[in-house]
Amino acid sequence: MKESIKVFAPATVANVVCGYDVLGFAVNEPGDEVIMRLTGKPGIHISKITGDDGRLPLDPAKNTVSASVQHYLNHIGKPDLGLEIELHKKMPIGSGLGSSSASTVAGLFAVNSLLDNLLTNMELVPFAMKGEELACGYGHADNVAPALLGGFVLIRSYEPLDIISLPSPEGLYAAIVYPEVDVPTKDARQMIRSKVFLKDAVTQWGNVAGLVSGLFLKDYDLIGRSMTDILIEPTRSILIPEFYKLRSIAMEAGAIGFGISGSGPSVFALTKDEATAAKITQSLQAHLKGISINSLSFVSKVNEKGPVVLD
Amino acid sequence: MKESIKVFAPATVANVVCGYDVLGFAVNEPGDEVIMRLTGKPGIHISKITGDDGRLPLDPAKNTVSASVQHYLNHIGKPDLGLEIELHKKMPIGSGLGSSSASTVAGLFAVNSLLDNLLTNMELVPFAMKGEELACGYGHADNVAPALLGGFVLIRSYEPLDIISLPSPEGLYAAIVYPEVDVPTKDARQMIRSKVFLKDAVTQWGNVAGLVSGLFLKDYDLIGRSMTDILIEPTRSILIPEFYKLRSIAMEAGAIGFGISGSGPSVFALTKDEATAAKITQSLQAHLKGISINSLSFVSKVNEKGPVVLD
Repeated sequence: MKESIKVFAPATVANVVCGYDVLGFAVNEPGDEVIMRLTGKPGIHISKITGDDGRLPLDPAKNTVSASVQHYLNHIGKPDLGLEIELHKKMPIGSGLGSSSASTVAGLFAVNSLLDNLLTNMELVPFAMKGEELACGYGHADNVAPALLGGFVLIRSYEPLDIISLPSPEGLYAAIVYPEVDVPTKDARQMIRSKVFLKDAVTQWGNVAGLVSGLFLKDYDLIGRSMTDILIEPTRSILIPEFYKLRSIAMEAGAIGFGISGSGPSVFALTKDEATAAKITQSLQAHLKGISINSLSFVSKVNEKGPVVLD
Repeated sequence: MKESIKVFAPATVANVVCGYDVLGFAVNEPGDEVIMRLTGKPGIHISKITGDDGRLPLDPAKNTVSASVQHYLNHIGKPDLGLEIELHKKMPIGSGLGSSSASTVAGLFAVNSLLDNLLTNMELVPFAMKGEELACGYGHADNVAPALLGGFVLIRSYEPLDIISLPSPEGLYAAIVYPEVDVPTKDARQMIRSKVFLKDAVTQWGNVAGLVSGLFLKDYDLIGRSMTDILIEPTRSILIPEFYKLRSIAMEAGAIGFGISGSGPSVFALTKDEATAAKITQSLQAHLKGISINSLSFVSKVNEKGPVVLD
């Protein structure tokens, strides 16, 4: 058994425009790193957190990483296993890129790796959802499932939990831009109407089915045509500076599709190649700079592996 | 150029439980036949209709077959082409199996075949939708598209029309039972609520995405798990005698999934083999007979070809 381990878990784009609460995919960067050591002394101790500007709690009961690891330890019958955790945030918090999910998944993947992979990554999903509940007030799976499984993931059902890995075209890239404005997930959810017109829901599930078909068929055009959201985006886009201008910039620069990542404020485009993704992030960042908004950008292939052991 | 032709077009199961207005599939039987002859005299003449108990109009302006053929002829610039049409209904009207669609598709496929396939079957879809508008008051595509294209079909979008052919497992069978009770499509549509809870719509589009994934993955269990409908079925099932009892009979007899075909009253099960499908139709018909309801049944592979030329 290894005594210590360093792991990486990826950022994720939830919803993928039309698939509110049921679709998500992982990217190769950004992501978070966790270093975990067996201490031999009972209990979890968080020794260090970097990259969080002091925003995350060191208290093991309140930190989502340690809290979800504790759920895991209780489940496998080792509630008192001694662990020391270092969390290195390599991505912005509150960006809509599954920041809490990346940390939680890194922690669970680390402890499970130290314990010789007692559970599969799929079996870790419910523990990661506990972490999301602590972080966001809502135990969703559309970040943690792709972070754990890699690639595109469908959450067909929450009760019972039923998660399906979807294929994606080999050359699919994501261009992500995070405008540095504040959009708390809880507020973003509360803005959404609780009732919708059935005819709009039909339009939406036609697009969800189209996106899934496009992924299986490796049909970039179908993927793009399906990336429209008439139910959630019209509301959530209000919180994102000049969202529709950003969309037109991305589409004119060659994006297959464009939308809000999770509940925002990050936006993303899918592209057929890396150069187009890079061009899109540059154009979007230049526009945001012109309206005095700082931003970060990431260009990445769609991640295929989920979390990985670094050391 | 042929002077006369006999064609068959298949019955179809629209909605496929979770995919209201966006999914449908065709079966090998039942279906309708059309015999069409070039007359050399301007105008369409319906010379004979059989199997309709006198319910369908012979007036070419009111009959959906001739009306949609006329739309086609206008479109290709031959509005006065002389045609004689015989329609042989080989399936019940008002059964929820796409009866009007089968006739309309047979007519369009016949005239297009006589004219050396000027249009593709995909290009015939809008003309068939015109026929549906005349028959049902609503130009839907979830019967005519699978009847024209065969197999499972997704209508991703109506405006613009975007139709995707989906694969299905080779051995997939449909067991169909038509209880002889009256459920007019218009009434069945009007019973449906115009607004739904977003959380229920999310459940539904998770299932739609799951069903599409199951078809691509040839995963019978996933197809079955996805065949649940929390939005439409609870209302429409009221019009079908002992619907939930029929479901439990079908599921206990080995169905993958079970539901209402289109707006009913026909019900259908999907199965992994012909013997199970046959057992299910027998059990369902026996139960219906016990409550004094006559029924018809059909066992068929999922149709792969759409309409075919018979002579």
